[in-house]
Amino acid sequence: MAENQYPPLTLDLIREAAARIEGRVNRTPVMTSETLDAMAGARLFFKCENLQKVGAFKARGAANAVFALTDEEARQGVATHSSGNHAAALARAAGLRGIPAYIVMPDNAPVAKQDNVRRYGGEIILCEPTLEARESNAARVVADTGATFIHPYDNLMVMAGQGTAAVELLTDCPDLDLILCAVGGGGLLSGTAVAAKSLKRDIEVVAVEPAGADDAFRSVKAGRILPSIKPNTIADGLLTSLSERTFAEIQRHVDDIVTVSDTAIIAAMRRMWEVLKIVVEPSGAVAYSATSGTGLDLKDRRVGIMITGGNLDLDWLPWMSPKAQA
Amino acid sequence: MAENQYPPLTLDLIREAAARIEGRVNRTPVMTSETLDAMAGARLFFKCENLQKVGAFKARGAANAVFALTDEEARQGVATHSSGNHAAALARAAGLRGIPAYIVMPDNAPVAKQDNVRRYGGEIILCEPTLEARESNAARVVADTGATFIHPYDNLMVMAGQGTAAVELLTDCPDLDLILCAVGGGGLLSGTAVAAKSLKRDIEVVAVEPAGADDAFRSVKAGRILPSIKPNTIADGLLTSLSERTFAEIQRHVDDIVTVSDTAIIAAMRRMWEVLKIVVEPSGAVAYSATSGTGLDLKDRRVGIMITGGNLDLDWLPWMSPKAQA
Repeated sequence: MAENQYPPLTLDLIREAAARIEGRVNRTPVMTSETLDAMAGARLFFKCENLQKVGAFKARGAANAVFALTDEEARQGVATHSSGNHAAALARAAGLRGIPAYIVMPDNAPVAKQDNVRRYGGEIILCEPTLEARESNAARVVADTGATFIHPYDNLMVMAGQGTAAVELLTDCPDLDLILCAVGGGGLLSGTAVAAKSLKRDIEVVAVEPAGADDAFRSVKAGRILPSIKPNTIADGLLTSLSERTFAEIQRHVDDIVTVSDTAIIAAMRRMWEVLKIVVEPSGAVAYSATSGTGLDLKDRRVGIMITGGNLDLDWLPWMSPKAQA
Repeated sequence: MAENQYPPLTLDLIREAAARIEGRVNRTPVMTSETLDAMAGARLFFKCENLQKVGAFKARGAANAVFALTDEEARQGVATHSSGNHAAALARAAGLRGIPAYIVMPDNAPVAKQDNVRRYGGEIILCEPTLEARESNAARVVADTGATFIHPYDNLMVMAGQGTAAVELLTDCPDLDLILCAVGGGGLLSGTAVAAKSLKRDIEVVAVEPAGADDAFRSVKAGRILPSIKPNTIADGLLTSLSERTFAEIQRHVDDIVTVSDTAIIAAMRRMWEVLKIVVEPSGAVAYSATSGTGLDLKDRRVGIMITGGNLDLDWLPWMSPKAQA
């Protein structure tokens, strides 16, 4: 894939991130299952970021970004707009450093998500549920407070932090042939691809995207970023679009990209709950769902699988009929 | 508590079991959570037997019993009557040794449970759903085949195998003040109590039982085994009654026994799913559910919690029932 003008993410930055966040995030386990191996015809190694702090890999990038600030920068706090795992992760990281975190959220964000941010000490600024309102409110907060804006993925320190998961995975399982990684905004995918390719030249990195939010797939095929148009998928953590920065890393390092249906995601999610006995959110099952039906040749190969998170509403599960909803 | 006539389970037997089953079962992780610690006002250490082979601690006892047989005994296979985790565990252990496993199950046992046994190579003998039919069918199978009957808990090798979980827990967390352990038939509780008290003289072992199946509670208070009368609890793995053998160990080693409501069990289960991100069956949440509302003084203490298993039907979850929300 072609180069572009963005400064590259490097293994050095990822290693610095690993040192910076050590003790501030979990070193998550890698799970295996003979049952799932037999079904896939491959050896699968699940990197369990659902068992990460705040229940998602986002804890890594947020911690790295917050602790990379100078004392002077840090004093004025950090800000972001997000209603998801990054918001909680940033609030948590700021709390660890004892600085304010200003989180702009749409006023229709679930109360549970707002509570989650508050529990970590984040200060919530509610706004209308439009991208424009989120961006203008975030800009105003930054102007008013002097806080540093920490984008959920379009930020080199965040990307470097997310890459630490793959470093751990390859430390525990150095013989992997391939890594499957979901793509939304591309932060985890960028970090994973740079870490993996730097540590093991011949490893393959394959991105997996919900078919209902396939802007990355289309962008990679077109060679330029194409917008996400009315994305619709059960994998609600992957509705975001690539940034120029993450797209550049993907072009440099990712070998292939495939899409998966919501039906496949839900089946994969359920199978992980049943066999691995872990709670995985729909987005977290996307990488594993690509082990069948995508045409990828995994036969007898050693496959790393990034489980991105485990945060979801347990009042209803996607394999249940709507009428079962509480 | 008083002694009785049964030969005791010993730490030596448990250590022999640990050596015998090493590599044949998982060495399960111990999970911790700052969130759950804060809620309990204690330091909690969760021994994750839901991440054990076959999804339950039963894999330990079955493996020990099967591999403790002489070659001559083993050749004729093993038999049991069970529709639960022990059936799958025994089939799996027999499969590892390459010997037959005859599993007597009631003909109304869910197809999923039958499939589970078959998947591990077990041979199922269906019978009427009465204890009498199960026992007479098991006796006939043993007479016909020469198989060794392996009771789910009233068996010293099974009890010794279950005790290996506590040895691992105390190896990983030697400073525990107390262990909470659910009681059904008493196999895990016996093994846990003997291991814990032998390894750490001043540790407390507290049994936890669903209020709707409180035969162990009543038996301990009465000083003799009282029958279980129409047990009714969401914790379907704990409907069984103590045997003389397990009751003897409980009398010798268990410091206290408390009961918990189904409402408390369901709330605990859900909290474990939400915070620990692991799938725990109702019985598996019983020990943790005793951390509040039982009058136990856990303040600032280091508490080991046995999570017994993670096998349940994911088509419906207990908190989705109107009753569960009461």
